[in-house]
Amino acid sequence: MKIILLGTAGAIPSSTRKLISTLVIRDGELFFFDAGEGVQQTLMNLKIGMNKPTRIFVTHMHGDHIFGLLGLIQTMSLLTRDKPLYVYGPLGIKNFLLTNIKNLGIILNFSLVIQEIKEGLVIRTNKFKIYAKKGNHSRTNFAFTLKENNRPGIFYPKKAKKLCIPEGKKWSALQKGKQIRFNKQIIKPSQVLGKSRPGRKIGISGDTRPTTRLIKFFLDCDVLIHESTYSKHDKLLAKDRYHSTSVEAAQVAKKSQTNLLILTHFSSRYNKINILEKEARKIHHNTIAGNDLMNFILPYPDEKRITSSYVLAQSNQ
Amino acid sequence: MKIILLGTAGAIPSSTRKLISTLVIRDGELFFFDAGEGVQQTLMNLKIGMNKPTRIFVTHMHGDHIFGLLGLIQTMSLLTRDKPLYVYGPLGIKNFLLTNIKNLGIILNFSLVIQEIKEGLVIRTNKFKIYAKKGNHSRTNFAFTLKENNRPGIFYPKKAKKLCIPEGKKWSALQKGKQIRFNKQIIKPSQVLGKSRPGRKIGISGDTRPTTRLIKFFLDCDVLIHESTYSKHDKLLAKDRYHSTSVEAAQVAKKSQTNLLILTHFSSRYNKINILEKEARKIHHNTIAGNDLMNFILPYPDEKRITSSYVLAQSNQ
Repeated sequence: MKIILLGTAGAIPSSTRKLISTLVIRDGELFFFDAGEGVQQTLMNLKIGMNKPTRIFVTHMHGDHIFGLLGLIQTMSLLTRDKPLYVYGPLGIKNFLLTNIKNLGIILNFSLVIQEIKEGLVIRTNKFKIYAKKGNHSRTNFAFTLKENNRPGIFYPKKAKKLCIPEGKKWSALQKGKQIRFNKQIIKPSQVLGKSRPGRKIGISGDTRPTTRLIKFFLDCDVLIHESTYSKHDKLLAKDRYHSTSVEAAQVAKKSQTNLLILTHFSSRYNKINILEKEARKIHHNTIAGNDLMNFILPYPDEKRITSSYVLAQSNQ
Repeated sequence: MKIILLGTAGAIPSSTRKLISTLVIRDGELFFFDAGEGVQQTLMNLKIGMNKPTRIFVTHMHGDHIFGLLGLIQTMSLLTRDKPLYVYGPLGIKNFLLTNIKNLGIILNFSLVIQEIKEGLVIRTNKFKIYAKKGNHSRTNFAFTLKENNRPGIFYPKKAKKLCIPEGKKWSALQKGKQIRFNKQIIKPSQVLGKSRPGRKIGISGDTRPTTRLIKFFLDCDVLIHESTYSKHDKLLAKDRYHSTSVEAAQVAKKSQTNLLILTHFSSRYNKINILEKEARKIHHNTIAGNDLMNFILPYPDEKRITSSYVLAQSNQ
């Protein structure tokens, strides 16, 4: 699983930060969380491709989070996308997209599936689940978590051999956690596998004040991408405008026992974002202030190969 | 007068070209012709400022020409613009802007004046006029010309002295082309001035097939910024999609006796735009294929200091 920060600015872009958008790539599938203006050009620069299985999650209906959606959809269509595109967001997202598509005469080659969501389970596949939870912002904001299902435990060939199960399809089925029938007996995966291994969990805050409901929602995240619009010195402003400070984001990360906290959605008033990073690290040491095009490779919790105290893996493109 | 190409891509951006937008700066006033996605960030990079006297002209209601408008307007408001913003465009522009502004809860600090235009005179000031003319595109497209009023001729102090007119306010009025009263006589500016000097004229095509009406409309342009979506080798495609080839743009420039032709709005299929430039130069020698952030300083026709056969003045920022 890979996380790429496509844009890290809140409200207004700067010369170095595009408007907010976070991309998660998992098993060849793209998950966008918000799509600020300019996201289509960033995708082109990264050569990510416009015809991948794609789901877009909109946290809330503010322009800085969605103005890149229309251009992205139009370009996907001009580049003859044929896979369906799924968009999930709060009430209003359907009207915003369909009205503009109609009024501007955008012809879609692909199926655009728009779902206005509520709190709770948004998607369930046999690999992962995505949940939404309301935050506390000036417009209805959904935070999201992507939680992978647990994977089957490690396969022990010795145990399979002891049961005389022949290699091949039957081994493969057991490895995937499926029970099999062999010699008129039922063999359970637990007879040849170790303990099931946890999947990964990531959280995305959208724009919000910190809340205890969200702390619970983000519990045990491997990575939490949290808005940090303001410095701790502008706490009143954060409160007034329903945003979070760097320190508040760090408190959410700490209380939810998040591993890595990535700060994003910075106000353009701050030239030096490392100050916000320092503030947050005093509360939650494993914090990174995001920059555009930073990317993070996220190994399985039981396979952690990277021991840096700050990042699971990080590189600037 | 200065022309800056903010974006030169048609339909789809590339890694080096943003979507179409052309900025004309005249006497401290900004004139945008279209506002493709990302225009607000380009303005920030150029440090042009969000609170200048500004008029935005929309050629037609296709996404690639207007998706930058919403973000630009939102950012102007967040940066507490207080001057009115004037937007001129075809039927539909009002609904597009007002519906999105309302649905996304954008609060405007400034007066947004939207005018749905028809062919003919759009603006008249005491310095210049802006005209619109319909093109031939898949949606109603307006081409525009900005034509400065003629300036008074050169002032001859000797003639003024001969008439015994004292230096000061009266000279100044005559220099500005106003008649004065002196010694119970009316003095006309023509008594002390040379021939009136022509103002500058620029044309912007928007998206269109070449037409004889447009050739007439662009007559004697100092600079014509014309779409050149396709190479001459894709003429059928240009015809089918209501666009122009490089050669067709050059024919319009030649027949309208334009001085400098700037090609823009290139299809993303062409990696090497200089091929389109070469095609056009065979018809109209004084042609430049535009790149993002190219800018052109446009002297008065009677003050031409730059003798290059290709450009009036050009520099890459």
